[in-house]
Amino acid sequence: MKLSEIGEFGLINRISPPFLHDLPEGVVGIGDDAAIIERGNGEALLVTTDTLVEEIHFLKAKTSPRELGEKSLAVNLSDIAAMGGTPTSAFLALGLPRDTGVEWIDEFFAGLHQLAARERVALLGGDTTRSPGPILITITVLGRAPLSHIKRRSAAQAGDILCVTGDLGDSAGGLRVMLEELPVGEDERYLLERHHRPRAHLAEGRLLGAQPGVRAMMDVSDGVDSDIRRIMEQSSCGARIDLEQLPVSPALRSASSHHGWDLTELVLAGGEDYCLLLTVDPSAMATVSEAFREKFARELSAIGTIAGAQGRLELFRDGRPARLGKHGFDHFLGRSA
Amino acid sequence: MKLSEIGEFGLINRISPPFLHDLPEGVVGIGDDAAIIERGNGEALLVTTDTLVEEIHFLKAKTSPRELGEKSLAVNLSDIAAMGGTPTSAFLALGLPRDTGVEWIDEFFAGLHQLAARERVALLGGDTTRSPGPILITITVLGRAPLSHIKRRSAAQAGDILCVTGDLGDSAGGLRVMLEELPVGEDERYLLERHHRPRAHLAEGRLLGAQPGVRAMMDVSDGVDSDIRRIMEQSSCGARIDLEQLPVSPALRSASSHHGWDLTELVLAGGEDYCLLLTVDPSAMATVSEAFREKFARELSAIGTIAGAQGRLELFRDGRPARLGKHGFDHFLGRSA
Repeated sequence: MKLSEIGEFGLINRISPPFLHDLPEGVVGIGDDAAIIERGNGEALLVTTDTLVEEIHFLKAKTSPRELGEKSLAVNLSDIAAMGGTPTSAFLALGLPRDTGVEWIDEFFAGLHQLAARERVALLGGDTTRSPGPILITITVLGRAPLSHIKRRSAAQAGDILCVTGDLGDSAGGLRVMLEELPVGEDERYLLERHHRPRAHLAEGRLLGAQPGVRAMMDVSDGVDSDIRRIMEQSSCGARIDLEQLPVSPALRSASSHHGWDLTELVLAGGEDYCLLLTVDPSAMATVSEAFREKFARELSAIGTIAGAQGRLELFRDGRPARLGKHGFDHFLGRSA
Repeated sequence: MKLSEIGEFGLINRISPPFLHDLPEGVVGIGDDAAIIERGNGEALLVTTDTLVEEIHFLKAKTSPRELGEKSLAVNLSDIAAMGGTPTSAFLALGLPRDTGVEWIDEFFAGLHQLAARERVALLGGDTTRSPGPILITITVLGRAPLSHIKRRSAAQAGDILCVTGDLGDSAGGLRVMLEELPVGEDERYLLERHHRPRAHLAEGRLLGAQPGVRAMMDVSDGVDSDIRRIMEQSSCGARIDLEQLPVSPALRSASSHHGWDLTELVLAGGEDYCLLLTVDPSAMATVSEAFREKFARELSAIGTIAGAQGRLELFRDGRPARLGKHGFDHFLGRSA
C-alpha cells in the first residue's frame, strides 16, 4: 500500500497512537495547531512546525525569495495565533541545491528577518543542508500563552456560533492569477499580495484567547470546509455553514466575476487564508463581537453554527440547503468582512 | 555567486549577523549545539534542529527505515547531550514522495518510537507533507539542563586537555563497507551497526556537564578535525591533536588493515561519530577521568590539548609533527577507548 492511497490524514491517524500514550502530565501533543507544554506558573510553552517544499508549496520562478522568507515564518506564527499565544523564537532547517544563488538566499533571509523583527521573534538556530533537488524550508516556532487563554479544537459545543477573523479565498484567488498568468490589474495585485504575504492573526488570536466566551479556535490553512472537520472530529460534533455569510473581499468578488471563477469553491476550499476559525458560546457572542470590533475596527464574521449530527457538515445558502455545482460547489455572492 | 562557492559555513556566517543582535536577555542563539533559553529558575530550555535528506544524508536502498527513524532522532539527541542536557520532546517534519510504501513509514516510526520511548522523549507534533522527490526528515528536539551544567563551545582555555567520549571512525568505516559493498564479516557488521545506529552520549553529557572542570563541549558530527575548529573559532584558540591517542575500535583497526583504508582519515575526518568532544581544565583532569571511569567503566580518551596559535590545528604523532599522506592523512595505529 502506498502513501498516496491513505493520504495525509490517514498517515497521521496511522502513526499517532503510540505517541499519544504516556505523555508527561500537562502536555498536549499531536492534534492541535501547536503542542502545549505546561510550565507550572499558569503559562504554557507552545511549539509548532511547518514545512514548505519547492514544487509542492511554492514555485521558485513565481515567488520572490523575500516573500517566501516572510511566508515561511508567517504560516508558523499563524499556528501560535490559533492558540491565543505570542511567538518568541524560531528555528530554521533549510535545504538548498548547490546552484542556489547567494542573492536569492540573502533576499530569503531579509524577508524572514523583517517579519521576525516586527513580531519580536528571535531566530535562535537551525540547520543548513544541501538538497538534491527542491528547496526545503522547515521552521519550528516556540511561543507562550496563559494556559487559560488556550482554545483547543476539542472545545466546541452544540449551539456555538462559528466565526472567522478575516476574508476568505483571497490567497486562492492570487494563486489562480499566478498559475493562469492572468493580466495583473488592481484586484489581481491585491490577491497576489494576499497569497504571497499572508498575515498571521496574532493580535486577533490574543484578543480572542482572552475571551472566556471563545471555545474552540484554529487557523485556516487548508480551507474552511476542510479545517472545520478537524474541530468536528475533536469535539464530536457537526457544523452548519451559511454560504452567504462567508466574508469575501471586493477584489475577489470582482476578479471572480471577471475571470469566471467558482467563488464558493475559492472561499470555502481555497486554503492558505491564515485567518482564524473559532466557535463562540452564543450567550457571549455580543461581548466577543464588540471586543473584536472595538480593537480591530472591523467585524468578526459569523459564518454558521456548531449543529447537527456528529461528523456532518451542512452547507446552507439563504436558509436553504445548498446545491453544489459541477466542481462540488455552487456560486454565491458573499459579503466582505 | 552560487551557494557551492561559499559553502555551508560561509552561508552561516553570511546569514547569522542580523539574528545575533537584539536577542532577549538570557538567550543564546546560533553558534552552539543547541539554543539556550533561560527559564528563570536556574534551568535552561534547549532547542536543536537537524535535517536528514535522502541522497545527501542517507540512501534509501541502503538504509532500513527502522534504523533511519532511530538515527533521525539520535543525531538530535546528540546535540542535547553536548549541552549536558536531558531531551524532553521532539517535533517531526516529514516529507514523503507519493509512492512511499506504508510499511516503510510504519517501520520508520517504529524505530523513532523505540528510541523516543527509551529516552523518555515525547513526540509532541509535526507536519507531514508531500515531497516531489527525496524523503525529507527534520526533527526539532527540546531539552532541559541546569544552566550551570551547560558547556559552551566558547569556553575552552589554553592548556585544556582535549578529550573524546568514544571510539572514532567506526561510522565512517560502516559507510565505506556499505558504499563499497564489501563482504560483511564480524568487523564489518560492527561498523555498519555503528553507522546506522549511532548512540547519543546522553549519560556521558550529563555526567560531564555536572563536572566544573569540563570547559567546552560539543558533539562530533563532521569529524574531530573539523569539529575542533568550531571550538577554536569560538574560544579564539589553537589545538594540538596527538594522532596515536585517538581511540579506535578493534573492529575498525582490523577492517582498515584488511581493506587498505586510510585509518587516520577515517578516525580524524570520517564524521557521524556522535560521541562528545570536550576540553578539560588540566587541574581537574584526574577528577573528571575518575568520575567518567567509575560511571561508564571505560576511559575518557585524552587526544590532545588546547595550545598554539589562534586558529591553528597541529597534528602530532608520537611527539613529532605528523606528515600527512596522499589523501592529506597518514596511517597510524590508535588505541581503543
